Amino acid sequence: MKRLPGYLNRIEGELWLTEDERENLKLSYRIKDVLFEEKSPFQHVMVLDSYDFGPMLVLDGVVQTTSMDGHIYNEMIAHVPLTLHPAPQKVLIIGGGDCGAANEAAKYDTVEAIDLVEIDEVVVRACKSWLPEVSGNASDPRIRYHYVDGVKFAAETREKYDVVIVDSSDPVGPARQLFESEFYRSLFKALNDDGLMVCQSQSPILHQDVMMQTYQRIGELFPYRKMYTAVVPTYPGGLWSFTIGSKRRLPEPEHIRFSKKARYANEEILRRCFALPTFLEELLASRS
Amino acid sequence: MKRLPGYLNRIEGELWLTEDERENLKLSYRIKDVLFEEKSPFQHVMVLDSYDFGPMLVLDGVVQTTSMDGHIYNEMIAHVPLTLHPAPQKVLIIGGGDCGAANEAAKYDTVEAIDLVEIDEVVVRACKSWLPEVSGNASDPRIRYHYVDGVKFAAETREKYDVVIVDSSDPVGPARQLFESEFYRSLFKALNDDGLMVCQSQSPILHQDVMMQTYQRIGELFPYRKMYTAVVPTYPGGLWSFTIGSKRRLPEPEHIRFSKKARYANEEILRRCFALPTFLEELLASRS
Repeated sequence: MKRLPGYLNRIEGELWLTEDERENLKLSYRIKDVLFEEKSPFQHVMVLDSYDFGPMLVLDGVVQTTSMDGHIYNEMIAHVPLTLHPAPQKVLIIGGGDCGAANEAAKYDTVEAIDLVEIDEVVVRACKSWLPEVSGNASDPRIRYHYVDGVKFAAETREKYDVVIVDSSDPVGPARQLFESEFYRSLFKALNDDGLMVCQSQSPILHQDVMMQTYQRIGELFPYRKMYTAVVPTYPGGLWSFTIGSKRRLPEPEHIRFSKKARYANEEILRRCFALPTFLEELLASRS
Repeated sequence: MKRLPGYLNRIEGELWLTEDERENLKLSYRIKDVLFEEKSPFQHVMVLDSYDFGPMLVLDGVVQTTSMDGHIYNEMIAHVPLTLHPAPQKVLIIGGGDCGAANEAAKYDTVEAIDLVEIDEVVVRACKSWLPEVSGNASDPRIRYHYVDGVKFAAETREKYDVVIVDSSDPVGPARQLFESEFYRSLFKALNDDGLMVCQSQSPILHQDVMMQTYQRIGELFPYRKMYTAVVPTYPGGLWSFTIGSKRRLPEPEHIRFSKKARYANEEILRRCFALPTFLEELLASRS
């Protein structure tokens, strides 16, 4: 590399990545090496090998996923909706360029097609080459890659899906549209009558406004909704929320069955992620 | 304040606390104000008012607990063992100078005495004055404060306890002894025949060695042991482990009953914290 971008700094001979998109909290990771770097039409894409978390996908200086914990997020965003649906055949993933959610979805024999809609082909390429712990092999022939805008794809598709997974980055810049009611309306239209969608709805501790807004917007469209949480060690706040919108009544968590091979998720974990902390139960109840 | 300690820096007019005890990961918090500062015989004690997490207890530059999330840790370290015991009367807390665990234990009518053994009186004073969200009022007359060394107290006490809570800081410096077999042996001796102990056993992701060592040492002494996890947003890695050692067979999680007023914990959460991620189940099984 000729020149370091602003968020990569050499301090006393050591390379550090400092995330500074947040106003009041900065995280700095000590970096061994730059494994991949490319400026795509959308963003600055890097894979950095870090000491504590192994290789990490970094977009415009912000850590998106790491070899060490990326599978937790991907397993939890994929297996919860996929086990809540009785027999998912068609799956749509919006975002999810790290390929991990698609790889998890490919573990279901009932699944016939997985449309992965990621605007940035460079992200997919980087993850397939440098983050196999997150992407899996991602070469299942049922995964169809669409390098187009997710909002546009959702608005225009004539396909009908059983499960839609919105694996977006934070609601800043272009990803903001993935938190808008109009986008959720497109997804509702693209779902079969017994279909369901899930989206990451940010931290219940640090981003209550976005989380509650998402919960509300999904509730305005879908007759059934439910929130669950998971731990995402490298996301600020650690605890992360996911919101499900469903056209069909959702089964009780006790009825979830799961026997796929996974590193984090298991049947107990998938059932128990619906147990919400008291403050969160109260918050949701106050707006229902 | 005349002079800023090394970990507090003024950058472009803003005050930032940078935790730098970790080799490969640095967290920096933007600070509004220094609420409390005192050099005790043991450490440099500060309460800093941060933008994202409110007032935080900072010992020798390392964040220990915050107004925003300190209750999660304290509720989870206290209510799990206290609900697993049929009728706890005498409770011993080693460490726990933020008073939060003692305050939670005081919610049980069966509890007659809570011995809180915190070496540093300055920590207790700082938390009572400046961190009421964590300490509660902590003025319950059943709480007896002992400002002495926890290892020594445990070795010398002739009291018998029903529940022991080891609320230690990380195993560096003086707290290292709180992770040694000899200390656990003292606790075993200080427990009634149906008693149990719990200790925080670090992050299952970032500190697997310490966690497994703790699990093993407790297993060597106690006939029954169990691990559970909780989210601690401001601890590195987010996911945190707790290890229970018990002299008596532990009830199944489904039999846990809990109806205390708490901000994070509820009956579902207390039952479900025993559902471990697959990697952790496998890790524990491999050493059993």
